[in-house]
Amino acid sequence: MRMYDLIMKKRNGESLSKEEIQYMVQGFTKGEIPDYQMSAMMMAIYFQGMNEEETVELTMAMAHSGEMLDLSGIEGRKVDKHSTGGVGDKTSLTLTPMVAACGLKVAKMSGRGLGHTGGTIDKLESFPGFSTGIDTDQFINQVNKVGVAIMGQTADLAPADKKLYALRDVTATVDNMSLIASSIMSKKLAAGADAIVLDVKTGSGAFMKSEEDAFALAKEMTGIGRGAGRDTYAVISDMDQPLGYAVGNILEVQEAIETLRGNGPEDFYELCLTLGSLMLVAGHLAKDKEEGRKMCEESISSGKALAKFKEFVEAQGGDGRFVDHPEEFPKAKIIEEIKAPKSGCIEHIECDEIGICSLILGGGRETKESEIDLTVGLVLTKKVGDQVKEGDTLAVIHANDREKLETAKERFLKAYTIADAPVEKKPFIKGIL
Amino acid sequence: MRMYDLIMKKRNGESLSKEEIQYMVQGFTKGEIPDYQMSAMMMAIYFQGMNEEETVELTMAMAHSGEMLDLSGIEGRKVDKHSTGGVGDKTSLTLTPMVAACGLKVAKMSGRGLGHTGGTIDKLESFPGFSTGIDTDQFINQVNKVGVAIMGQTADLAPADKKLYALRDVTATVDNMSLIASSIMSKKLAAGADAIVLDVKTGSGAFMKSEEDAFALAKEMTGIGRGAGRDTYAVISDMDQPLGYAVGNILEVQEAIETLRGNGPEDFYELCLTLGSLMLVAGHLAKDKEEGRKMCEESISSGKALAKFKEFVEAQGGDGRFVDHPEEFPKAKIIEEIKAPKSGCIEHIECDEIGICSLILGGGRETKESEIDLTVGLVLTKKVGDQVKEGDTLAVIHANDREKLETAKERFLKAYTIADAPVEKKPFIKGIL
Repeated sequence: MRMYDLIMKKRNGESLSKEEIQYMVQGFTKGEIPDYQMSAMMMAIYFQGMNEEETVELTMAMAHSGEMLDLSGIEGRKVDKHSTGGVGDKTSLTLTPMVAACGLKVAKMSGRGLGHTGGTIDKLESFPGFSTGIDTDQFINQVNKVGVAIMGQTADLAPADKKLYALRDVTATVDNMSLIASSIMSKKLAAGADAIVLDVKTGSGAFMKSEEDAFALAKEMTGIGRGAGRDTYAVISDMDQPLGYAVGNILEVQEAIETLRGNGPEDFYELCLTLGSLMLVAGHLAKDKEEGRKMCEESISSGKALAKFKEFVEAQGGDGRFVDHPEEFPKAKIIEEIKAPKSGCIEHIECDEIGICSLILGGGRETKESEIDLTVGLVLTKKVGDQVKEGDTLAVIHANDREKLETAKERFLKAYTIADAPVEKKPFIKGIL
Repeated sequence: MRMYDLIMKKRNGESLSKEEIQYMVQGFTKGEIPDYQMSAMMMAIYFQGMNEEETVELTMAMAHSGEMLDLSGIEGRKVDKHSTGGVGDKTSLTLTPMVAACGLKVAKMSGRGLGHTGGTIDKLESFPGFSTGIDTDQFINQVNKVGVAIMGQTADLAPADKKLYALRDVTATVDNMSLIASSIMSKKLAAGADAIVLDVKTGSGAFMKSEEDAFALAKEMTGIGRGAGRDTYAVISDMDQPLGYAVGNILEVQEAIETLRGNGPEDFYELCLTLGSLMLVAGHLAKDKEEGRKMCEESISSGKALAKFKEFVEAQGGDGRFVDHPEEFPKAKIIEEIKAPKSGCIEHIECDEIGICSLILGGGRETKESEIDLTVGLVLTKKVGDQVKEGDTLAVIHANDREKLETAKERFLKAYTIADAPVEKKPFIKGIL
């Protein structure tokens, strides 16, 4: 077999076989197939696409390129969850203890990543002492005992994907649905869960700007997951404005705790219930979504979800007192309100821009080496469809630097469009696959 | 400027500017732009194409990536000729002395290359002592004095093309008209002639199998040449069967000399006249093709073309006696006739296969290191449209190895299709651009 022939085949619109895809991924991972052939292949795939079988095989080959996590030591069905990411996305913090309190086993790997705020791990590190640097044995023991554990992603999970993504990133071959889907799913398959629930975001704050693209990605990913023999569901949800009100690490942790107490923002709570009900179905603990939803609601209203969160934080070395007293988390030095410049109805929030405000304030990472400021961020008070009067508070900004605050504030105000006429609120959940 | 952005631009179907193309070619030549980005770009170009301006700019940038030959020391207009290559193509041997005898200045760079037979240089080396290892000064002096000189291609001519072609060759990005045209033309532009006449072959023995593709390539190349300010013409000619009758190095030299004596095969002579007349027009020595054709015919019939060939061979150190006595060239050890297996009319000759027979006999190079056997090859006696009787000679095969002869012979017979009904001969010259 020669890589040249495979490039030619794909370039000419033919499909690659399982053996060909395995040859390609293994050769590339070992360095036997050079980058310049792989990048030509990626561009050919960009133009010619891959069918469902090819996409599954690529994903499987990448998943098997390194360690495949063995979760057989955990009793019961293991359900994983993945979000394509967005602004104010603190879902894992609320969702995982909520379903763990229902008896589900959640063994989750999580990354830090680059972004507007830190990742789930950064947010959890708001709790003094919290650590995700646990080994696989500790991880499995904790899932068995507590029901939920979060481990930092190990380097050896799907190394082919890591290498391939780095190449795609510099050759303008990232934005192809099959490749995006296989990149995400290869790590999920390697992480060993029996079922996967995907949270696919769409809108101005998401990677997938259009609903059409988000549905297409969700379809690719569920196709891969099911093709690989895992129960897979996808929820397509709105990211045309930030999720909930809080954007920033500690601010989001506080909102997640409020939601566990039953006082969460409507959209965020709805997302947790939707994803949670599917996780319970996938985990064979609920017979359908309706039953799952009731179990999740009961998990919150009974206080069990909140207690599970505290148990989880403490199990990983975190100071659980902050779960009971989130107001005691450190605060930013400057806390100011941003006022509405005119009266009307919020028509549009350029969601990406709100994320960038958080980044400007120091809440996210621009490079791998950046230090995150856990205290900074924004808490919105008005969202799309809300009426405002000139001078009303649009948001509260948390900063440790006056100059950064002013830059972020200016940018924040430009991100809001206020209309004279009323604006209808759009449905938050776009669909479930 | 970033290569990433240029790949993205081309991938999305936009055009690249002159500055962008120069940045890309210069960066790639210097090794500042990595192979993996360039191969992704080539694949994007394969799918999105390049417009005429982009193709001209790419060609110019590659031509300027190394030495630009300065032919200003040659008096009069310099006309170069290029063939896309085929089976039995000995055109340069007859054509260049023929037009030089008419007063044209022919300064030609030529390669050895891989193929069914050697290149023009290999064929000329059939003359003991002949050398193309002359320097630029000797080259210019000889063109001024004799009217024709052939120099081996120097390494520094269009190095960007050399590097880019090597990359395209292993990434399945060779067969794009703009890229093929720019590769050929960059070397021609760097070689410094005022005008270029292109011989574009089409058919089963050519790189361009279909007439449509051959015309498209001819259009791209004449567009580039004219865009770069050089008088450029292209002749599209048949390569659905070997050119003339002889295939093999010395065998072709003998046929070229026969043609200079006025006894050449009809198709080959027609090609020389067609290309020659255009070269004389491009060199401002003939007012139109008709006048040019008459001059070429007169060059042959008067014996001046043959005399010029001898002068040229001797000027480059070759033994000119063989021009007068081509029958004295060394011969292969085994010379046998191949007989027609049935009666009928020759319907089709799989031209590629005849070339491969020559390669099997040892007449061509499979790798750069291969030694060429100058004596072996085939001389056809029947071509498409000719009537044969069972047992008639189809060709004479010249070999130095019985086993190779048998293999080649078997393959040769499979390449011929003999029909019961008469077959019409197709026009040899397909068009002129």
